[in-house]
Amino acid sequence: MGGLSEGLTQLLIPAAALLGIGFALLQWLLVSRVKVYSYPDDESQENNLIEGGQEEGIDDVEVVAKCAEIQKAISVGATSFLFTQYKYLVVFMGAFGAIIFLFLGSVKSFSTKSEPCTYNKGQMCKPALANAIFSTIAFLLGALTSVLSGFLGMKIATYANARTSLEARRGIGRAFVIAFRSGAVMGFLLAANGLLVLYASINLFKLYYGDDWEGLYESITGYGLGGSSMALFGRVGGGIYTKAADVGADLVGKIEKNIPEDDPRNPAVIADNVGDNVGDIAGMGSDLFGSYAESTCAALFVASISSFGSTHNYVAMSYPLLISSMGIVICLITTLFATDFIEIKKVSQIEPSLKRQLLISTVLMTVGVALVSFVALPSKFTLYDFGSDKVVKNWHIFFCVVTGLWAGLVIGYTTEYYTSNAYSPVQDVADSCRTGAATNVIFGLALGYKSVIIPIFSIALSIYVSFRLGAMYGIAMAALGMLSTIATGLAIDAYGPISDNAGGIAEMAGMSHEIRERTDALDAAGNTTAAIGKGFAIGSAALVSLALFGAFVSRADIETVNVMNPKVFIGLIVGAMLPYWFSAMTMKSVGSAALKMVEEVRRQFNTIPGLMEGRTKPDYANCVKISTDASLKEMIPPGGLVLVTPLIAGTFFGVETLAGLLAGSLVSGVQVAISASNTGGAWDNAKKYIEAGRSEHAKALGPKGSDAHKAAVIGDTVGDPLKDTSGPSLNILIKLMAVESLVFAPFFAAHGGIIFKYI
Amino acid sequence: MGGLSEGLTQLLIPAAALLGIGFALLQWLLVSRVKVYSYPDDESQENNLIEGGQEEGIDDVEVVAKCAEIQKAISVGATSFLFTQYKYLVVFMGAFGAIIFLFLGSVKSFSTKSEPCTYNKGQMCKPALANAIFSTIAFLLGALTSVLSGFLGMKIATYANARTSLEARRGIGRAFVIAFRSGAVMGFLLAANGLLVLYASINLFKLYYGDDWEGLYESITGYGLGGSSMALFGRVGGGIYTKAADVGADLVGKIEKNIPEDDPRNPAVIADNVGDNVGDIAGMGSDLFGSYAESTCAALFVASISSFGSTHNYVAMSYPLLISSMGIVICLITTLFATDFIEIKKVSQIEPSLKRQLLISTVLMTVGVALVSFVALPSKFTLYDFGSDKVVKNWHIFFCVVTGLWAGLVIGYTTEYYTSNAYSPVQDVADSCRTGAATNVIFGLALGYKSVIIPIFSIALSIYVSFRLGAMYGIAMAALGMLSTIATGLAIDAYGPISDNAGGIAEMAGMSHEIRERTDALDAAGNTTAAIGKGFAIGSAALVSLALFGAFVSRADIETVNVMNPKVFIGLIVGAMLPYWFSAMTMKSVGSAALKMVEEVRRQFNTIPGLMEGRTKPDYANCVKISTDASLKEMIPPGGLVLVTPLIAGTFFGVETLAGLLAGSLVSGVQVAISASNTGGAWDNAKKYIEAGRSEHAKALGPKGSDAHKAAVIGDTVGDPLKDTSGPSLNILIKLMAVESLVFAPFFAAHGGIIFKYI
Repeated sequence: MGGLSEGLTQLLIPAAALLGIGFALLQWLLVSRVKVYSYPDDESQENNLIEGGQEEGIDDVEVVAKCAEIQKAISVGATSFLFTQYKYLVVFMGAFGAIIFLFLGSVKSFSTKSEPCTYNKGQMCKPALANAIFSTIAFLLGALTSVLSGFLGMKIATYANARTSLEARRGIGRAFVIAFRSGAVMGFLLAANGLLVLYASINLFKLYYGDDWEGLYESITGYGLGGSSMALFGRVGGGIYTKAADVGADLVGKIEKNIPEDDPRNPAVIADNVGDNVGDIAGMGSDLFGSYAESTCAALFVASISSFGSTHNYVAMSYPLLISSMGIVICLITTLFATDFIEIKKVSQIEPSLKRQLLISTVLMTVGVALVSFVALPSKFTLYDFGSDKVVKNWHIFFCVVTGLWAGLVIGYTTEYYTSNAYSPVQDVADSCRTGAATNVIFGLALGYKSVIIPIFSIALSIYVSFRLGAMYGIAMAALGMLSTIATGLAIDAYGPISDNAGGIAEMAGMSHEIRERTDALDAAGNTTAAIGKGFAIGSAALVSLALFGAFVSRADIETVNVMNPKVFIGLIVGAMLPYWFSAMTMKSVGSAALKMVEEVRRQFNTIPGLMEGRTKPDYANCVKISTDASLKEMIPPGGLVLVTPLIAGTFFGVETLAGLLAGSLVSGVQVAISASNTGGAWDNAKKYIEAGRSEHAKALGPKGSDAHKAAVIGDTVGDPLKDTSGPSLNILIKLMAVESLVFAPFFAAHGGIIFKYI
Repeated sequence: MGGLSEGLTQLLIPAAALLGIGFALLQWLLVSRVKVYSYPDDESQENNLIEGGQEEGIDDVEVVAKCAEIQKAISVGATSFLFTQYKYLVVFMGAFGAIIFLFLGSVKSFSTKSEPCTYNKGQMCKPALANAIFSTIAFLLGALTSVLSGFLGMKIATYANARTSLEARRGIGRAFVIAFRSGAVMGFLLAANGLLVLYASINLFKLYYGDDWEGLYESITGYGLGGSSMALFGRVGGGIYTKAADVGADLVGKIEKNIPEDDPRNPAVIADNVGDNVGDIAGMGSDLFGSYAESTCAALFVASISSFGSTHNYVAMSYPLLISSMGIVICLITTLFATDFIEIKKVSQIEPSLKRQLLISTVLMTVGVALVSFVALPSKFTLYDFGSDKVVKNWHIFFCVVTGLWAGLVIGYTTEYYTSNAYSPVQDVADSCRTGAATNVIFGLALGYKSVIIPIFSIALSIYVSFRLGAMYGIAMAALGMLSTIATGLAIDAYGPISDNAGGIAEMAGMSHEIRERTDALDAAGNTTAAIGKGFAIGSAALVSLALFGAFVSRADIETVNVMNPKVFIGLIVGAMLPYWFSAMTMKSVGSAALKMVEEVRRQFNTIPGLMEGRTKPDYANCVKISTDASLKEMIPPGGLVLVTPLIAGTFFGVETLAGLLAGSLVSGVQVAISASNTGGAWDNAKKYIEAGRSEHAKALGPKGSDAHKAAVIGDTVGDPLKDTSGPSLNILIKLMAVESLVFAPFFAAHGGIIFKYI
């Protein structure tokens, strides 16, 4: 028990991170062997067992050239959007960094004198000014890592999309492997990067802080704040971008002009495909990185004021990082199952294979967690528990991590059940299209509401168990447990938009109907995995927020967050309202931006001669510009709402109201987020169910263009902003407000509650 | 100060109640002067200033006969549904009454010995068994009064609907007065009845309880439970009934067959009109009666354990009843403004006139509250505040009541802004129909989300102020303040479905286009007032629940409801999930029932020859039966969820988890409820905005049958279950769980939390 030495710990963590990066590069190399410009013929005799039998149009050079062209357009569009967004973000980072420095520095009037420690009574800690400086630095580091994570994900996704389409000519199995490997590149890069930067920062900060671990880990929480605030803008901006383009393209193309999705004649089609990469890939990457950073920071902060911190047990202190390191190794093994051990031969094997990834990683990780817990943790130690000490054993913490890990699996599987068209919920929604769009919308909303039940019970259970066993540290570790398999989670999540893009490219490049069917099958599974990814993101966000909330309550020195205290209760009810306010903003933004897009697409169809007949090309760039401008303009108010609310609540109403606000937004936001993303996923797949027409029931509802199908398209369009803009942004809302409150806690505790002081 | 004598109090309360009943009867008499069978010609020369100028088809005897026939069909359908529902409710009342008796009786093992009082230390109180018996009796009384309220409302509404259509021939102003007077009948009967029964029960219970006011007012809380549990089934059953019929009728009639709303050829049209009466009238009546009963009971309970109780100050104790008495008088004066002082001459005056009712009643009531507060309350007294005593002054309590009263006005006006087609939010939603149903749904959902912001801030403010000034008693009085003008609120609310029915009857009886336009204008204002009514119902439910919650916390002897306690937190997050679960059930129920209705309507169109041409009559009765059966079957699971959850939570998880659950469902449910009912109201009026085509903008979107109008119809249909089934049922969910917990608190405190005891 507790046999790991400090030196070995110092070695293992970076080693795991580098292993992850190496593995990601290897996957990238394998993906790059699919040539987009010219295609080698030497392998064309293999793999004849793939579904669809024969290979399709392997030698069509023109198609390859077209794919290359489209890929380039998408990549250029995505890169240019992200760089434009970064200009805004740099301004924000500077301004918000300054706010952090000023607020925290003002706690002790920018004094450079050492202070008595808050928790380690009797010892001296570094001055508050140092915390202000290092929190600001950590914030900037987190922000940069988050941006980098999103950017790398977007790069690999736009690199892989055309390769997946081209590989689809060789069969469904090979296309699947390309899409999955590309997802894995993103997953591993992100997990490894996050770990490495955090590890390096801690070691660098320690050069200054030395034995003052309280101050060290308090400032490190800035890392989580940086990660999440970038994720907020990534998610919101990217989400508005992608859905303005998607909704706009669908409304004119599919509904008015009756041309298929991703038809190259549609002027908004490139913007739509760019959107998948900036919203679903870059946004999701930043989001999960944020959750990962925050849960680690929350765990480290609580540990630093527990016996690990006061006894300076470096190995035990590094437990969260060791868990993440183990996660990288486990996910590496898991990935091999999908890419090498088991081969996909039929469409029906895709979804089970992705589901199996979750199960394998969870089972293996359970063993991994046990191993880490027994070598890294002392068999008995004490944890900070709101002022008192709680004695815990290493296996208690093992259970906390595992509870989170398995809760994640339950959430993932529940999400799959409610959003995959293999089960009755989505089929019922599809069936309701018989009576039109209205019943489709009613059934879809009901499905989303219903889909929150099991996730909430599993989150509640894991909260109860981990809280009882490990207090706030237990919650933070449960969150990290859920995220420990992040590399696998992100791989299957990123697989979705990559397949979506691949389908778009296949359509635009004029590939055969058969290939389009294969990419459609990949995409349908991708809708489900995207929903699963969102489920993970939300579930982990709930746990992370609670952990951060607990850390905030400790740091702000609040005794009890008593609902019967009116200050707390008004926070609670207003907090529960915030997700609605935020959703109203983001949905309205998507709606308005989509209206602009519709007008532009209509204008092009009306004024460009020969466009509808396919003789002339539309002006793709103009649509890209509309999405870009709209999303950048529209991301500011909801972003502002999230960032400013805790500052206002804390400064004017004080820490108790702020605590109520955080609890309210957490318990309300998680419901809105889960139901929104599952409703949207279900509508999308109900539409795909009708389109694919694989069963008698589905055939009776179809084919494309039937009344039921039109009703399904309306549902799908309504679901777009729910599942890709407002829903997934909400988990950032709850996390970000919590981490922001934690970072600013010393300020609020010192100067907060102005209004109540004077009434 | 405090100059009111006990004798005068004993006189004033029943006098006010009888005055209310008398006024209601007078209004009924005035309504009855419109003859449905034969129409007197003696007044036909008056009122030529009415909009539309000339009177329309006054002498058409055939139309009158037709109206009479349709009215009878609606009345018979509604009565038969309610009586069928009552059979179920009698069984429920018996069973649940037995549960109350057994649970509460078991607290002290059915002992008949007197017990030491809980709050008045050192004194002896009546045995727990007596409380069990009297709580059960109070429950049954509350249930009966609630059922009676709903039934009477339905009776007058089905009496007034045809009269309103007929009076519309004489002009918009006269039709408005008839509809409004009928609403007033319901409002006054209900307010007066509620007051009278409660007053009588207290006096009768006192014969047994004597000086044991603790036990007396604890058992009286059963009255609130009875009221709300009936309201639950009334709302849910009625809501499913009305929307199954409405959605079913619209889907086939308006969308498939392109026939107008309320066309007599549509087989579901009678069921649709019956639905307005059983859902929006009877359900709403029971609901607001429940809120009224609960807030009074909560106030009385808290007062009984404060200085009023221990000093046996009967006048001060009766303060809540005196406020309600004053409310009846004020509302009586207010009503005269609408019916006698100011005359409606133009369509555009309808909504302002209804809005003015709210304002007048609020302003007058503010004076009334001041009066009552100064004559009934001692200038200084103490209130129970979670174990400690809080010293308050009479003007503190005056402010509590007034805060609630004005918060109600703010909520009402906000609701009007978001759901009336006179303002930009609804016009924007209508505008979004240009690009189809999908954008309409997106904008509508965003509108609903946005519409929660101001109501939540005003609820939060009134909670803070009233809590600070008057602790839990203050909250209960704020709730009662919001409900003190219930007679006016109900009058303008019931006006909505009556006008809706009137429009239906006008259409079915083949009245002229001009008359139909007048009833449409009444109805459009009615949609808004219905939404306002729901806003009041929800706002007051939030305050009532909080008051009941506070009473529960006191009664269950919980020290703090600390969010950082995992037992509380899991309750909080699961509680926040319940509104979603409940909504999923009710929306799915409406969807399934509507599908059945659609099939039946289609079947009739396909198999009854000459139906579409209007040569033969459809089989209305079969559609009525489908709605009846579906609603009675489907109301059980959501009803069960609400009633069983507190029992399970309290018994197995204990009072702390239950407290968390109540807080969670309160803060989450209020958002879902407000957004659902405003979204639905806005969609309905966006459709009406396009249909009426009163502005250039509206004309550009219309006319009926245009693509934009079709999109608007889809939004309206989606909104139906949101605004009339799931949304308004949610306020009962939050109230009912709270009052149930309060009634069962002695049991939970004694025997609850089985699971945690053994883990």
